[in-house]
Amino acid sequence: MSLAAQILAHKAGREVSVGEVVEVCVDLCMGHDGTASLVVDEMDASGCEIAAPETLLLVCDHFSPPATQERAAIQKKLIDFAEKRCLPIALNRGICHQLILEDSRCVPGGVVIGADSHTVTGGAVGALATGVGATDFMRVLQTGSIWLRVPEAIRIVFTGRLDWPITGRDLMLEVLRHLGSDGAIYKSLEFFDETEAGISMDQRAALSNMSVETGAKCGIFVPDCTTNAFLRDRDGGYESNGLFEKPGVDAYENEIRINCDALEPLVAAPADPGNVHPVVDFAGTKVDQVFIGSCSCGRLEDLAETARLLAGRQVHPRVKVIVIPASQSIFLDAIERGCIAEIIRAGAAVSNPSCGPCCAIDKGALSAGEVCVSTSNRNFPGRMGHPDSHVFLASVPVAVAAALAGEIRDPREVRA
Amino acid sequence: MSLAAQILAHKAGREVSVGEVVEVCVDLCMGHDGTASLVVDEMDASGCEIAAPETLLLVCDHFSPPATQERAAIQKKLIDFAEKRCLPIALNRGICHQLILEDSRCVPGGVVIGADSHTVTGGAVGALATGVGATDFMRVLQTGSIWLRVPEAIRIVFTGRLDWPITGRDLMLEVLRHLGSDGAIYKSLEFFDETEAGISMDQRAALSNMSVETGAKCGIFVPDCTTNAFLRDRDGGYESNGLFEKPGVDAYENEIRINCDALEPLVAAPADPGNVHPVVDFAGTKVDQVFIGSCSCGRLEDLAETARLLAGRQVHPRVKVIVIPASQSIFLDAIERGCIAEIIRAGAAVSNPSCGPCCAIDKGALSAGEVCVSTSNRNFPGRMGHPDSHVFLASVPVAVAAALAGEIRDPREVRA
Repeated sequence: MSLAAQILAHKAGREVSVGEVVEVCVDLCMGHDGTASLVVDEMDASGCEIAAPETLLLVCDHFSPPATQERAAIQKKLIDFAEKRCLPIALNRGICHQLILEDSRCVPGGVVIGADSHTVTGGAVGALATGVGATDFMRVLQTGSIWLRVPEAIRIVFTGRLDWPITGRDLMLEVLRHLGSDGAIYKSLEFFDETEAGISMDQRAALSNMSVETGAKCGIFVPDCTTNAFLRDRDGGYESNGLFEKPGVDAYENEIRINCDALEPLVAAPADPGNVHPVVDFAGTKVDQVFIGSCSCGRLEDLAETARLLAGRQVHPRVKVIVIPASQSIFLDAIERGCIAEIIRAGAAVSNPSCGPCCAIDKGALSAGEVCVSTSNRNFPGRMGHPDSHVFLASVPVAVAAALAGEIRDPREVRA
Repeated sequence: MSLAAQILAHKAGREVSVGEVVEVCVDLCMGHDGTASLVVDEMDASGCEIAAPETLLLVCDHFSPPATQERAAIQKKLIDFAEKRCLPIALNRGICHQLILEDSRCVPGGVVIGADSHTVTGGAVGALATGVGATDFMRVLQTGSIWLRVPEAIRIVFTGRLDWPITGRDLMLEVLRHLGSDGAIYKSLEFFDETEAGISMDQRAALSNMSVETGAKCGIFVPDCTTNAFLRDRDGGYESNGLFEKPGVDAYENEIRINCDALEPLVAAPADPGNVHPVVDFAGTKVDQVFIGSCSCGRLEDLAETARLLAGRQVHPRVKVIVIPASQSIFLDAIERGCIAEIIRAGAAVSNPSCGPCCAIDKGALSAGEVCVSTSNRNFPGRMGHPDSHVFLASVPVAVAAALAGEIRDPREVRA
């Protein structure tokens, strides 16, 4: 069985087969100001209690803080709801998907449901994490459980070495090059790290995060020593429950093998995350904005790399460079390590942990014709502003190279 | 003669009298993305050169970075204008009025013109600094000079000691209590620091900044040893030009004497900066948001005080607390001193230097009924969002007390 099937079987307490629908209890249920607010009136009108408040994670990250009075009103509904029901709420503490990774309820074999498609990020630690709409989210609130179809699965194996300037983002863009943006609809992507030095948890998060861009239901890293080390660090101790066996090849309908040694820096060109090409194909394209952040790439390793590459240099005077840590905890770590000071000295705007420019919510919206290199996860028309703006999705090294050069460049050139 | 009259006489090279209009050259001419962008098309159409590019300071701070595609388009006009004419532009480097204070062209006896009413902030270092509209701004671009009417002047003398929790903000609110929001229209407020320990430059900036809320043309601190120390620190050496004499009492049409010892913490209640009352009159008012920042109060002393008062505590879980340094340079200093980490640990959102919530541009807009305690300078209906939101202007200690308590409190109570 695939890892997703094993998790669902364990939760259901019986054998399951691909295609059937099972009801499973939820370990962590996340809603944010942009989505959870939609169910507040209905919850209040129904008089319904929250079935498992101990599983709840309410986050204000999309309007963080709100850039318009309308969004402030939406967010206020959620804040008032939490206050009235004595529920904790993470107000301006970071992007929900990063807060899930920092949450001890997100563990290997767990089921994580979030009212946001990028909840898949939780797969980095081995959870079956997936996004749902507001109606399903409300049902989880009311029952503590969810119906899920046991998905088909695709096995993705990484080998070789992940050397600069190749990052987890390039690996995922390579996966997208294979699958396209509809190549894995409702399937479980399951990642096997067979690289020489291992893929770090921050890079795994970037991979799981973009699983959904292939249409996948989830993107799970098969737990290993990297997972265990992360969990020990986060939770102060972790014992694998040993419930899961490493899935065999026959559990998968398909296998993709990616040799990291053979990769070059990639971008997803406008206007589809599956429109993947080598960065050199777009060298010389003038850039108006660079965004480093989002639930895909705002982690400590990303900020440290940004700082390292910007150190002692100035970003191009014409280019808006925006850097946003994914959580307050990461922001603090990055300050302590000197990364934030280095990034500010280079002339970038460092804003508070929030979704921001990723979906044109606040700081970083694009006007017609503007070009942005972004470490976020979507570049559909209008995603970051005007429908005629253009977004290239790329890794941190590619983004920093563009910030320095004012145009798209191979990062190996800019560094030299 | 008042200081303003002396400056204008010196610039005009002749004696001047109150009420006459003189043409004077400008030492520093500032325009930002919200105002300078308005003249770009006209400048291009006229084919006109910039008369004194060495006096120019172009700043992108209002849309920093832009929260909407429309504002991105406005800002882009200014960025393109600067690039085409090879003019430096301060993109995401901080709030224009703080950048003026950090600029060696803003000196005692200088004339500083900015396309923004809070340009008066430059008065903190003894310059005649004032805001103009886009038309006047364009004339300065085209000629390097400006017409100014020699203003009547009001002498404001501070005595006693400025002890916690009283700050420069309370002094200015006390001035506003005396003058109201139309008590000094087109007049020069001239501040004499006769306090025991002296008023720091950061506090002076808060005072000069809000001069314009009385209708004043400018708010100038008469240069003294505090000014000289600041200039030595900023410019690495300063010799007073000795051109100006300390103005006598007869140069003024009115005098206001304020004894700092007798003050208590004040607020300007909705919806007018002149609606000043003791903070205790509003004790218990529930607060939804606290904003510490703006060109009025986002300086190092303000951030250090915020950090000191928040240290080891958590802001109220329901309250949106937003802290924004006034410039990148201040941001870096505050990081180095550990203030930013302390503020983040307490749960506040620290965003990049920009105008932000002060005028509902981005992060921090208020919905109907919401109450904000703000260290910014205006609380007109709708200034920070919905016309039915309510803004109390206050000092940093009053703002932090509200952030911790979730309601308006006397800061002396919250500290205890």
